[in-house]
This record gives sequence, C-alpha cells and structure tokens, in this order.
Amino acid sequence: MRALVTGGAGFIGSHLIDRLVDRGNEVVVLDNLSSGKSSFLSHHDEKVKLVNVDITSLDEIIGHFEGIDFVYHLAANPDIRLGTKITDTDLKQGTIATYNVLESMRIHNVKNIAFASSSVVYGEGAPMPTPENYGPCLPISLYGASKLAGEGLISSWCGTFGHKAWIFRFANIIGARGTHGVIFDFIHKLKNTPDNLEVLGNGRQEKSYMEVGDCVEAILHCIEKFDESINLVNLGSVDTASVTNIAEVVIEETGFTDAKISYTGGDRGWAGDIPRAMLAIDKLRASGFEPTYTSVESIRHTAKILIEEIGL
Amino acid sequence: MRALVTGGAGFIGSHLIDRLVDRGNEVVVLDNLSSGKSSFLSHHDEKVKLVNVDITSLDEIIGHFEGIDFVYHLAANPDIRLGTKITDTDLKQGTIATYNVLESMRIHNVKNIAFASSSVVYGEGAPMPTPENYGPCLPISLYGASKLAGEGLISSWCGTFGHKAWIFRFANIIGARGTHGVIFDFIHKLKNTPDNLEVLGNGRQEKSYMEVGDCVEAILHCIEKFDESINLVNLGSVDTASVTNIAEVVIEETGFTDAKISYTGGDRGWAGDIPRAMLAIDKLRASGFEPTYTSVESIRHTAKILIEEIGL
Repeated sequence: MRALVTGGAGFIGSHLIDRLVDRGNEVVVLDNLSSGKSSFLSHHDEKVKLVNVDITSLDEIIGHFEGIDFVYHLAANPDIRLGTKITDTDLKQGTIATYNVLESMRIHNVKNIAFASSSVVYGEGAPMPTPENYGPCLPISLYGASKLAGEGLISSWCGTFGHKAWIFRFANIIGARGTHGVIFDFIHKLKNTPDNLEVLGNGRQEKSYMEVGDCVEAILHCIEKFDESINLVNLGSVDTASVTNIAEVVIEETGFTDAKISYTGGDRGWAGDIPRAMLAIDKLRASGFEPTYTSVESIRHTAKILIEEIGL
Repeated sequence: MRALVTGGAGFIGSHLIDRLVDRGNEVVVLDNLSSGKSSFLSHHDEKVKLVNVDITSLDEIIGHFEGIDFVYHLAANPDIRLGTKITDTDLKQGTIATYNVLESMRIHNVKNIAFASSSVVYGEGAPMPTPENYGPCLPISLYGASKLAGEGLISSWCGTFGHKAWIFRFANIIGARGTHGVIFDFIHKLKNTPDNLEVLGNGRQEKSYMEVGDCVEAILHCIEKFDESINLVNLGSVDTASVTNIAEVVIEETGFTDAKISYTGGDRGWAGDIPRAMLAIDKLRASGFEPTYTSVESIRHTAKILIEEIGL
C-alpha cells in the first residue's frame, strides 16, 4: 500500500506514520513544517518520503497523488486562536487545502481518504456526551467552521465522484511530540515563571482528552471495521478533565510545586473556545475498540513525556 | 433600515427586495448579473441601488458594507450540476464568497445576516420529512458542501465575533422570474421539441416545492419571530411532487399535449442529485407561518407564469 499523509511530520501524523510503516506501508508525507518537524520522521528509512510543500497550493501538491492508494488528511492550522486574528487562516489551511487534496485525488483516481475532523464541529450547547448524529452542527470557532466545511467537501466527493471516506471527529488529542495545546503551553509557562501558572478562563473548562497512540490505533481500527461510503466516527476517551485538573498535574510533574495558579477569568479560554465538550464514543466501542487511557491518565502520561521532550 | 442583498437581481433576491422596499428599506444589491437580471429590479426607484460586482472578490465588495444594517446573503452558483464539471465553482461562488461577505460585515461592524442555505445539506438517506436537528449532514453535491460550509462560517462568526444569523434551509423554491430549475428547463425543452419531453432520471425523484412569495414572506416572518444568536429554520411546503408530476403539469399548461415523456433512466437526474427530499417545517409552522401553496399548486402556478415570461 502507498499511503499519503498530509501534515505527516506533525504531532498526530508522525504517530500515524509509525503505525503505517509497521504495517508495511510506503508513505509520502506532505508537510510545510510550519508546526511539524522532520525530526519526528527521522527514525524511518526511505519508506517514508517527506515532501516540504504547501497544501494551500493545488499546483504544488497534485503530482504527489499519482499511484497513491490511501490518503490520510491531517494537515490544518494547528492554532485555533489564530483564526480570530487572521480570519482567512482556517479558510485557506483548512477548507481550501481540503479541496486541493480532494481534487488531487479525483485527478489521480485515488479513492480512499481518512480525515481528521474535530469535536468542535458540534458547537456549543450540544448534549454531553455528544453522539455522531447530533445536529445541527454550528461551530463557534473559525477552525471548527473549516472542519465542518472539510467534512462536507469530502462527503460531496463521495456522493459525486465515488470516493470513500472515514471522517474522525477528534476529542483533544495529546501525547508525545505534542507541538501545541494546553499541556504544552503550561509546561512552557512554568519554565518561564516557575512560581505562577496563568490559566486562560476560570479553569472549569471541561473536555475529553485522548492519548495520541489510542487515537492512531482507533483510526486504523475504524478503517478496517467500517465499510460504508462515508464512515463518521467520534474518537475520544471515556471521561473528561478540567483545565484546573491539568494545571495541577503539570505543576506536580514539573516539580514546580510552589507555583500558584492564576486565572484570567471568564467561562472560556478565548473567543471561539467551547467551555465543555465530551464525545460519545459508543460507536467506536461497539466496533470493538477500547481506549487504553482515560482523560486524566493521558494527561499525566503526556505531561511526563512533554517535560522530557521540552526540558525544564 | 439599510439592507444589502447579495444575488439581489436574481430569482429569489428580487422577490425579497420587493418586500423589503414595501417595508421601507433602502437596499444595496450586489450581483454580477450572471443569472440575475437588472430588469427584475427596474420597477424600483433610487431606493434600490444595483452594484454589478463579483462577490468572489473581497476587495471589490468590502466598501459596500459601510452603513448597512442587515445582510441577506443569497448569491450562489445557481447551477448545481456545474459543480461536477468545474469542481471549484461552488468553493469560490459559495464558500469563499460567504467568507468575503462575513469578513466585510466584520470590518464594517454589520451584525445581522440572513443566509440562503439548502435542504441538500442533509444529504441522502435522511428521514422524510427531515427536521433541522438531523445529523450528521453529509451533502452529496458540491453545491451542498458549499452551503454546509457557509452555515459553519456564519455560525463561527456568530460565536467568535458576536454576529447574529438566520440560516434558512430551502426546499426547491419556484415561481415568477425563475431563471433555472426543472420547470424552467421543461418549458425550454418543450419549446425546442414540442412532441417530446426528456426527463433526467426515471421521473420518480420526489421533492418538496415552495412558491417564492411564500419563501420570502417566511424569511421576513422568521427574522421577526426568532431571536437567538443563530436561528436555523427549514423553509418548505407541506407535501412533495414527483418529476413526472411536474412534467405532466408543464405539458398541460404549455398545451403541447401530444408531447411524450421520455426518461434518461436511473434513480437521479445527475451525479450529486438527491432522489427524494422533504423538509420538516414544524418549526416554521409553530412560529405561526403557513405556506399558501402546496407543492403541486406552486408547480402549476409557476408553470403558468414562466410560460408567460418565457413565451412559447
């Protein structure tokens, strides 16, 4: 099998590629290394080919889809908050990039795609845990809008051109090689000011966290188990954790136990943040997959590893 | 009130503007006249200002949003089938155009938007009639993908920048000044070959039709009645009609009663067509609005008017 992974030098992408190589795939990686790192792939041999390319340009990427059997489309703007400042970031790096991937697939007759969507497509006020059939999806972040747009583009390619898709709505994915997100941010903040940890919002934001190894195993499991034209599955863990929980774990693991937690206040971290989110993972579990880690376990596991990777 | 209507020289837009002017609005119309016609607005005085401009260009449109109170965003690629040939048509004229409208609103602090979405966002296999809370929305046409993307962009602008939106998922809207669609096509076909009417598909495609006067009254009604941050409402009629029903009515009304109906076959008119669709309009009716016409009534009414407009 020849796989193509967009964003393959990134956090989730590089873990996925480890599994794909284990299973005997050759992998072409399209990544502009804006947040991904070539070092995340340096342990692989010539079976993994990294192409430094910008997927917002159809012309730049289209040729790389020739002879590909399966596309894993993970590339996206990694910084949700950026969308509020430069409002076409997610339009370009999310929606238009997904169009470029699909059009490249159509031209080169590549039929299969797995897509990293997100729990944020559900928007605010969805029941917790949120099942896949919840509607209407009214995302409140520009990042969420681009994920919903990506889902729609993919389903329209399936309906119109006969493609086949696995769409994954991710909870917060955390773990080794993390390049952004709350744990990553807290470690960096504590490095700078070991006596104070500033938390955006009131700390009561409560979300579900999934360990990245669980996430990529779940992706490969679902591709094997689900065989519809479009297969949409929530990927998450069985519980939630609050931002204060995370702050406490990170303080404990860094050893900066004198650090005081200060809160910027308000019910959310930034405009477009969703204060409370938990995915229903009944569909995933019914297919025979159980996450290894709970939210709190994956947070502690990730804190330990990222402290090691970042260095204090 | 100063209203801005994108696609305001088009079929639905021009009817909406008639009502807006009746209610004392001044109206700025952005329309590239690709399917709209300035003659649809020529009965108005200087209260309606038509600007011939392409909304796929942010630079071209942004200045026209200054001093606007309410945006009605109706412009879109009118030809669903075109999307399968030139695959970025709906991306540009739908998704990116909607981004341009929203960004223009943000820059000029215009807070209110009504958006013409579509029943096709629900995709195939939705229950009939389909309620607003049906999910997941997996459109099968590229046009449908652009409408879903537009909804997501709008809801993210509401969630992030404090805009307020009325999103309308339209059934098939028909009536005077129609510039496309099945009745329009059938009349033109019969003009060319009065003894034969070719129907795309097997004729059993079954959909709900709403008369355009009902549609624009419902829009204005809902803006008055619904007051959430995001208000999403299905607009349709109480029943459905088949394509064969429509063919028979059009043959009868044209007087070409010797015409034989021939079918191209298959369960749908084209790749990306949805064979059966009917919207649940309980939310609309519960708010106190009843459509004047049933599907079949609106088809006959429309056939009579369009035959008059087109000429045989």
